[in-house]
Amino acid sequence: MNKTVFSSVLCHPLLFPLRLSSFPAGNAKMYKVTVVGSGNWGSVAAKLIASNTVKFGSFHDEVRMWVFEEKLPSGEKLTEVINKTNENVKYLPGVKLGKNVVADPDLENAVKDANMLVFVTPHQFMDGICKRLAGKIRADAEGISLIKGMEVKKEGPSMISNLITKQLGINCSVLMGANIANEIAMEKFSEATVGYNQNKSAADRWVQLFCTPYFNVTAIQDVEGVELCGTLKNVVAIAAGFVDGLEMGNNTKAAIMRIGLKEMMAFSKMWFPSVKDSTFFESCGVADLITTCMGGRNRKVADAYARNGGKKSFDELEAEMLHGQKLQGVLTAQEVHEVLRDRGWQHMFPLFSAVHAISTGRLPPSAIVKISEEKPR
Amino acid sequence: MNKTVFSSVLCHPLLFPLRLSSFPAGNAKMYKVTVVGSGNWGSVAAKLIASNTVKFGSFHDEVRMWVFEEKLPSGEKLTEVINKTNENVKYLPGVKLGKNVVADPDLENAVKDANMLVFVTPHQFMDGICKRLAGKIRADAEGISLIKGMEVKKEGPSMISNLITKQLGINCSVLMGANIANEIAMEKFSEATVGYNQNKSAADRWVQLFCTPYFNVTAIQDVEGVELCGTLKNVVAIAAGFVDGLEMGNNTKAAIMRIGLKEMMAFSKMWFPSVKDSTFFESCGVADLITTCMGGRNRKVADAYARNGGKKSFDELEAEMLHGQKLQGVLTAQEVHEVLRDRGWQHMFPLFSAVHAISTGRLPPSAIVKISEEKPR
Repeated sequence: MNKTVFSSVLCHPLLFPLRLSSFPAGNAKMYKVTVVGSGNWGSVAAKLIASNTVKFGSFHDEVRMWVFEEKLPSGEKLTEVINKTNENVKYLPGVKLGKNVVADPDLENAVKDANMLVFVTPHQFMDGICKRLAGKIRADAEGISLIKGMEVKKEGPSMISNLITKQLGINCSVLMGANIANEIAMEKFSEATVGYNQNKSAADRWVQLFCTPYFNVTAIQDVEGVELCGTLKNVVAIAAGFVDGLEMGNNTKAAIMRIGLKEMMAFSKMWFPSVKDSTFFESCGVADLITTCMGGRNRKVADAYARNGGKKSFDELEAEMLHGQKLQGVLTAQEVHEVLRDRGWQHMFPLFSAVHAISTGRLPPSAIVKISEEKPR
Repeated sequence: MNKTVFSSVLCHPLLFPLRLSSFPAGNAKMYKVTVVGSGNWGSVAAKLIASNTVKFGSFHDEVRMWVFEEKLPSGEKLTEVINKTNENVKYLPGVKLGKNVVADPDLENAVKDANMLVFVTPHQFMDGICKRLAGKIRADAEGISLIKGMEVKKEGPSMISNLITKQLGINCSVLMGANIANEIAMEKFSEATVGYNQNKSAADRWVQLFCTPYFNVTAIQDVEGVELCGTLKNVVAIAAGFVDGLEMGNNTKAAIMRIGLKEMMAFSKMWFPSVKDSTFFESCGVADLITTCMGGRNRKVADAYARNGGKKSFDELEAEMLHGQKLQGVLTAQEVHEVLRDRGWQHMFPLFSAVHAISTGRLPPSAIVKISEEKPR
């Protein structure tokens, strides 16, 4: 019987010495990490990683972080301040990243020596970044994407990990989970899931790179399942927000979250039959869903939408509440709707379909609890 | 492909006519229902059932409800007031049960004509009730238990459904789910799970009896899995309460709930290898866990325990906050601990073990987030 009930590659502080010793002496400092991105989550990722590269001999101590250069109100450049203070004063103020984090405003320079590339930029920048980096990275590089905003296109889900693999010609894993960045920055206990394709030893290395006593990472061989969880949960969070706004109570909210989780599973398996049910019991699945449906902006704006009886559109509420930022969940619901409509499969996903019908004003918010009766177009 | 992504027997208002027509004319009124119990949840169950027995020809309209007789402050008997007002003024005030609900203070009389027996009493009364009813029920009776407080004994989990089957010699299903009784009484959308053994047609009948447009019931062939969910979730709710009391944030709470769910699965499968993973995606599993970890008295008292730094014992807090009622979660954690200790399996269940060690004062509340490092005895 296993040591614990958890399957798969599990990070555990006590296992680190074993792992470390499994790298032969000749492998010392053979892995060099660059974080591509430096927002809130990117900065926290750099902090986690920097605490491990100095601890384990197989990594170079230095963690390079590509920073989209900005001029601060003080007149200083963001990279200069980060390198002087070890703090991302704009996106993660008050938290030391580690002295071994080096901010670099030059993307090509930041990645050229790295063989472990961590992608954590806003989703819409990835295509441009990949185009700039094509042909300019090490042949032995491995990638990992922490980007949750994958698109669902008409021809099916379009995964960021796949974009990276195609454009850069490298293997790419993903890391997702119930990960509110500021809570991890405060070293509050969290979990995450690494999804990988084939390369188990690369996955073990990602686990070692991210894992700390307060950040517990598990690797599973299901990159598509892990990545789809990260996107589809936002549609469920919209539904949960409607329930909150209508003050339907705990039973209803739990029911809607559960139905949402099952639709996430079914949708993922429809596109990738290799997706495993067990993935949805990982941090990227049920745990991230819980976090997102309890807090988060998708839930919040949907709550306000229902309280206004649908009289203010999502566009208006987004403008009021999010300063022009778009809600991922509403966009994903639209994309999911289109892909299901093309195939005539809407009836198999009553919750996803209801979220889209409600968010576009074709059904009232109360329709969210009549998902087996209503038939959204 | 299926009509929806949901597996198993699914209740749906539109399916009712089909089901009804599947009972031949000769079967009219062949099922007679008695609800054994009349507390808050029992009264809501009677209301749900009574709305269906008048709707479907296969059931007798009358639903008999055994009521433990009490004298009300007005001097009237509780059964008399229920039968006069159609309201359980003590345990579900303000809600009409249906004119076809007949309160009966005589247990043996209440059950003698019934062939569908719904058990929904406090857990500790069931042994006595079964002893009184042995040999006094119809040979063709089927039972269903709505009682969540099953015991875990040294020799393994002791299921209420099993007690009923053994003592009364009848087949017994269970109904569990994210079911705060008052929310269902207000007809807010909820779901529930029927767990059954072998008798699929009996399970279909239970689904038909309970299902309404606002109470969606699914039957699955996993009586032990469904019933164990109902008990073990209370241990996880204690852990979730500690996290709330320590103000650890959303990531941590989601992580603890997820780890708890996986330990529930592993514990259940250890005793009953037939238990299915998919059961934990049903209302009895993840949804009930969410409801219980968000509200509920187990979570609440554990929150207070952590806020007091463990200085007030659970016994004291129970006395202060619950008027002498015992917390199910703490008792279950104790029982789970004993059964695991006997077999030396505690290390496989770090969360269950930590809940026990914390609730008995052997570890501080903060140990709940160090479950992979601490080793509770």
